[in-house]
Amino acid sequence: MSAGGPSLRRRAVLLGAAAAAVGGGTVTALAARDAEPEAGPSAAAPMGAEGIGFHGVHQPGIDTLPAQAHAVFLGLDLRPGTGPADVRRLMRLLSDDAARLMSGRPPLAAEDPELPALPSRLTVTFGFGPGLFDAVGRGGDCPAVVRELPTFPTDRLEPRWSGGDLLLQVCSDDPVPLSYAVRRLVRDARSVTSVRWMQRGFNPARGSEPAGTTPRNLFGQRDGTANPAAGSPELAEAVWVRDGPSWLVGGSMLVLRRIRMDLDTWDDFGRVGKEMAVARRLDTGAPVTGGGEFDEVDPLAVDGRGMPVVAASAHVARAKARTPAERMLRRGYSYDDGPTADGKPDAGQLFAAYQADAATAFVPVQARLAESDVMNLWVTHVGSAAFVIPAGCVEGEFVGQGLLGA
Amino acid sequence: MSAGGPSLRRRAVLLGAAAAAVGGGTVTALAARDAEPEAGPSAAAPMGAEGIGFHGVHQPGIDTLPAQAHAVFLGLDLRPGTGPADVRRLMRLLSDDAARLMSGRPPLAAEDPELPALPSRLTVTFGFGPGLFDAVGRGGDCPAVVRELPTFPTDRLEPRWSGGDLLLQVCSDDPVPLSYAVRRLVRDARSVTSVRWMQRGFNPARGSEPAGTTPRNLFGQRDGTANPAAGSPELAEAVWVRDGPSWLVGGSMLVLRRIRMDLDTWDDFGRVGKEMAVARRLDTGAPVTGGGEFDEVDPLAVDGRGMPVVAASAHVARAKARTPAERMLRRGYSYDDGPTADGKPDAGQLFAAYQADAATAFVPVQARLAESDVMNLWVTHVGSAAFVIPAGCVEGEFVGQGLLGA
Repeated sequence: MSAGGPSLRRRAVLLGAAAAAVGGGTVTALAARDAEPEAGPSAAAPMGAEGIGFHGVHQPGIDTLPAQAHAVFLGLDLRPGTGPADVRRLMRLLSDDAARLMSGRPPLAAEDPELPALPSRLTVTFGFGPGLFDAVGRGGDCPAVVRELPTFPTDRLEPRWSGGDLLLQVCSDDPVPLSYAVRRLVRDARSVTSVRWMQRGFNPARGSEPAGTTPRNLFGQRDGTANPAAGSPELAEAVWVRDGPSWLVGGSMLVLRRIRMDLDTWDDFGRVGKEMAVARRLDTGAPVTGGGEFDEVDPLAVDGRGMPVVAASAHVARAKARTPAERMLRRGYSYDDGPTADGKPDAGQLFAAYQADAATAFVPVQARLAESDVMNLWVTHVGSAAFVIPAGCVEGEFVGQGLLGA
Repeated sequence: MSAGGPSLRRRAVLLGAAAAAVGGGTVTALAARDAEPEAGPSAAAPMGAEGIGFHGVHQPGIDTLPAQAHAVFLGLDLRPGTGPADVRRLMRLLSDDAARLMSGRPPLAAEDPELPALPSRLTVTFGFGPGLFDAVGRGGDCPAVVRELPTFPTDRLEPRWSGGDLLLQVCSDDPVPLSYAVRRLVRDARSVTSVRWMQRGFNPARGSEPAGTTPRNLFGQRDGTANPAAGSPELAEAVWVRDGPSWLVGGSMLVLRRIRMDLDTWDDFGRVGKEMAVARRLDTGAPVTGGGEFDEVDPLAVDGRGMPVVAASAHVARAKARTPAERMLRRGYSYDDGPTADGKPDAGQLFAAYQADAATAFVPVQARLAESDVMNLWVTHVGSAAFVIPAGCVEGEFVGQGLLGA
């Protein structure tokens, strides 16, 4: 084996860059092969070599934007009898694995450098469910909204897509390093956990559309237009916990909903009706009341006959945050597990919403949508899970250390 | 809706280009948005707009190389009572759908242009299994090797991954247009077919590594090095049927094997042993006997003590074509349906081999591998299906028309 080959040189560059990164989510455009280190992703510096730093104030995979093209969400359950020391060891091991994998290296116990070498912006994000708090004797530290999310009248939740003690969210622009990372993480977790559910999601391939284009969901809609902008103070305010214990400040809350889409009836519904259901155009994502994609829908606009353009039950009119506390970062992925044996779609969205407090954000917004939203004709929530996202960690520490003890 | 918006302009360019393509598999680098029509894929002309022509001497999705990043293989069964007129109507409809989808348009019965607009080299390939030949009263036209592939002593085939009357192979570099295409094709097929199996596969994301890099499989190996080069006479000779009825000349045969990989034990096996099992290096894919990736393994090489470097049972030594008739085009994809509930991998390869005659190519090669191949320690064939791939069709005709009648 040539110790000075291109892949090792590339990895050295990547490691140096990752070590220099101070905040979670720092994107490091890495030079590959013989390209200049300054070059961004291009034919000469392929996208695979881009790495995200694991260590920092926040966990990665939340403000890592645009969201990577592929995601695996894993809901793990602690095996009966798992105690605080087990969870501590688990989180120390998985945090170390995550840092290595994100910087393009295999876990400590693994040998081969090839599969993780091109992480393609791989991120690993951990979330704690109520069962984990209970297992470590800290049940009182689990926020009530995470312990039991309110039920909504439109819910049709299935246990097989709901709950979980420990979340692993693993994302990458490339399904190959993603598959490797999930396999190694699960392997290191399986002595003390079992897999409750696994959900795979995708967004348009990186490079399919120009950088910065809002991705389309399986309804064909641009989805995420109303998100706070990457790097903005609005995003930080919406997403990160500001008050609380040190392991939580800089953390977040994730609500993950599996939303089945009735694509057969949607596909057959008229185009004008589809646009009115959301109050945004399908082609550009712009409001039906005029303007560009990032302009607000005008709820008071009237047509030539004086009739309101936007119905009160249009999706945007109901979903829009009405107070700053309702704001979330939606980091959604499409899923497609179909077709079924009889040729029907089994597809929809993995709605992943990050927020500082789900009690003031997801809950009131979803209550409004459950009460009235034209889109309820085509969407059904079939899975639900909520997790506390601990703050990020510095090198040598692990995610959740302040809660679990060193 | 603005009739002259960028997406419609882009589609117009794409349609013109597709109509101008004469052979199946013609890649059309399309300009997107306001870029110059001459520009290839780049930040200014994203990869999504690239289209492949459906019509031609050969079906697309075979010599469309490099293989797209994502694939769905669907094994459909004709519903009981399906007769020749039904199959004719089905193939006429699906061929029309495929031509439209590949050129970035929705099927005839669909309305919205957004989801199919960026096909990202979408291809649709049809294969006929023995049940289809029987249903149209042409059972005698099904080659014996497709009707019943020999069994091999290492086979552990499961019915849920095997057989099928009609194959749909749908590939794209982007999972979003792929999902849409599969949904629409299956919808148009479901009145006369049911879904016997569905298998999703992936390769490294487009742009992860420099163009032309051989993809890695989940063992970490470069896989496909020995394939005939894209556009070469060797590829044409290996893949396309030269003698037979007009609907078959220019066609091919597909053997699709689902090969489970035991990744736990592979990951733990020593690196030297892994390389010796295949006789190629993991980092570069080069022979362990020296040279570069595309050099041949030297079966006679000896080490300093005079011992053979390459074992007789090394994978490459057994798999290499020994006659021109044994050559195939392998167009494989990784699959990963894991982890299982207990945290074990459920992953491997969808081995898709195209050849003019499986009786002289896949069968003798697989017989050799089943007899002796070090890699049998880690691979198990759990699914198997074989299909006749009819020739391509010209505009206004459909795939298989010569067999099924107009």
